[in-house]
Amino acid sequence: MKHIKQINQLRVELKQFASQTIGFVPTMGYLHLGHLELIKRAREECDIVVLSIFVNPLQFGPNEDFSRYPRDIERDEQLAKEAGVDFLFSPSVEEMYPEKPLTHIEVDEITSKLCGSSRPGHFSGVATVVTKLFHIVSPDRAYFGLKDAQQVAVVEQLVKDLSFPVEIVPCDIVREEDGLALSSRNVYLSSDARKQATVLYRALKEIQANPPSDPESIRSILHERISATPLARIDYIDVLSYPGLQAVTTIENQTVIVAVAVYFDQTRLIDNILLR
Amino acid sequence: MKHIKQINQLRVELKQFASQTIGFVPTMGYLHLGHLELIKRAREECDIVVLSIFVNPLQFGPNEDFSRYPRDIERDEQLAKEAGVDFLFSPSVEEMYPEKPLTHIEVDEITSKLCGSSRPGHFSGVATVVTKLFHIVSPDRAYFGLKDAQQVAVVEQLVKDLSFPVEIVPCDIVREEDGLALSSRNVYLSSDARKQATVLYRALKEIQANPPSDPESIRSILHERISATPLARIDYIDVLSYPGLQAVTTIENQTVIVAVAVYFDQTRLIDNILLR
Repeated sequence: MKHIKQINQLRVELKQFASQTIGFVPTMGYLHLGHLELIKRAREECDIVVLSIFVNPLQFGPNEDFSRYPRDIERDEQLAKEAGVDFLFSPSVEEMYPEKPLTHIEVDEITSKLCGSSRPGHFSGVATVVTKLFHIVSPDRAYFGLKDAQQVAVVEQLVKDLSFPVEIVPCDIVREEDGLALSSRNVYLSSDARKQATVLYRALKEIQANPPSDPESIRSILHERISATPLARIDYIDVLSYPGLQAVTTIENQTVIVAVAVYFDQTRLIDNILLR
Repeated sequence: MKHIKQINQLRVELKQFASQTIGFVPTMGYLHLGHLELIKRAREECDIVVLSIFVNPLQFGPNEDFSRYPRDIERDEQLAKEAGVDFLFSPSVEEMYPEKPLTHIEVDEITSKLCGSSRPGHFSGVATVVTKLFHIVSPDRAYFGLKDAQQVAVVEQLVKDLSFPVEIVPCDIVREEDGLALSSRNVYLSSDARKQATVLYRALKEIQANPPSDPESIRSILHERISATPLARIDYIDVLSYPGLQAVTTIENQTVIVAVAVYFDQTRLIDNILLR
């Protein structure tokens, strides 16, 4: 595995593989099994696997956790090597944004719901950095986890609207044994919060096992279960069409996402299920 | 020359030339000698030349000339063939935008001046379609005329900010014998307006020959010359740094653009000179 930090060097290295398929896994690092599943899938489907690790300041709000977002590049490097990554790309903020960028990409409508509503500017930052990374890596396929299901929807819309020559591969959520969705942010959780956070998937699974057909009942069951948990503070609970993220009056005859964002202490966790 | 109207077909055709250099000339058609100079330069510098002809609705305002913009695809096809184009790509609006796109690209600051101020949304439409065309064609170099100097600045900013793997090649303005900058919109001009429109370059040449160092004097000379022309109605006259398009207090020690936009009857013409 080659570990590369310069854009131009990565371009030069990748040029020799222009005729092979490149699989790309963009991440913010602090790798967990969810990331490793993306790499595994890319490894199976592509000739060359590129993993990027970049904590992108553009997608963090002024009061969010950019500076304290967990980082451990040495451990990540080891995990990436073991997972069969060919190129690890970990540029600095200065390498990605040597001067203040004037260009930003906006995806309307689907970014106004769920996390887009709680985190204004977040998806513009995501769309902009994903575009930039795609231009640097020129992947044939890019792998994204469905824990960030809205991100997948935004990236798929971006790729469609801008005719990106890349296939987006959404991958299932990977969970701890007790159901908690893997996230680099889980490390923030206190021991009590960690235990209580399992309510999210327990409540979602209850819906999945026996889904009421009207979104209002789904929301109210989830609200009841989650708000009964002492450390939980609900950011949103919503039921929308997927990937269009439109309001729905029934869950029948369409794919819907049941998505939650909940604070435990200062840590905001998200989770979701898709009902098809 | 192959004339292609489908995105996927163009991709398939271009795939076999992946190891060669692709020169791209994006246009709105109704080709004139200015376009042909861009093609000639691309022909000299690249293995494969792709010309696109697409009148992009996104970059026209609601009261602008999208529907009456001049079109003559048969004549264009003949001219392209004679100029040595390898692939003429002329997609329909439905091919480019099969459904309403939700994604748009914004370039801040430099789009608020000059034509950006007169034509709100214009440069977002330009940046978005250029991005889409770049993703379809994957050019090594793209050729743009400096008559639209602000467009060149916007596209260069876009390419830098988003790390597009493409080199932008700005090309000099091509003029009629009497100095009028070539433009597909010149066809709109009445015989009287056509004669009077030569004032633009005459006035700009007067500045170029003997430039006052302060922008205010440049503006006032141009204003005097142009407003003395009966059919002329000034949209803007400005002197800014180039390509940053910042206000300047002197033209010394920097490249500045002296840019004008003037209506003759209903036809809006633009022209500029760069002082280095």
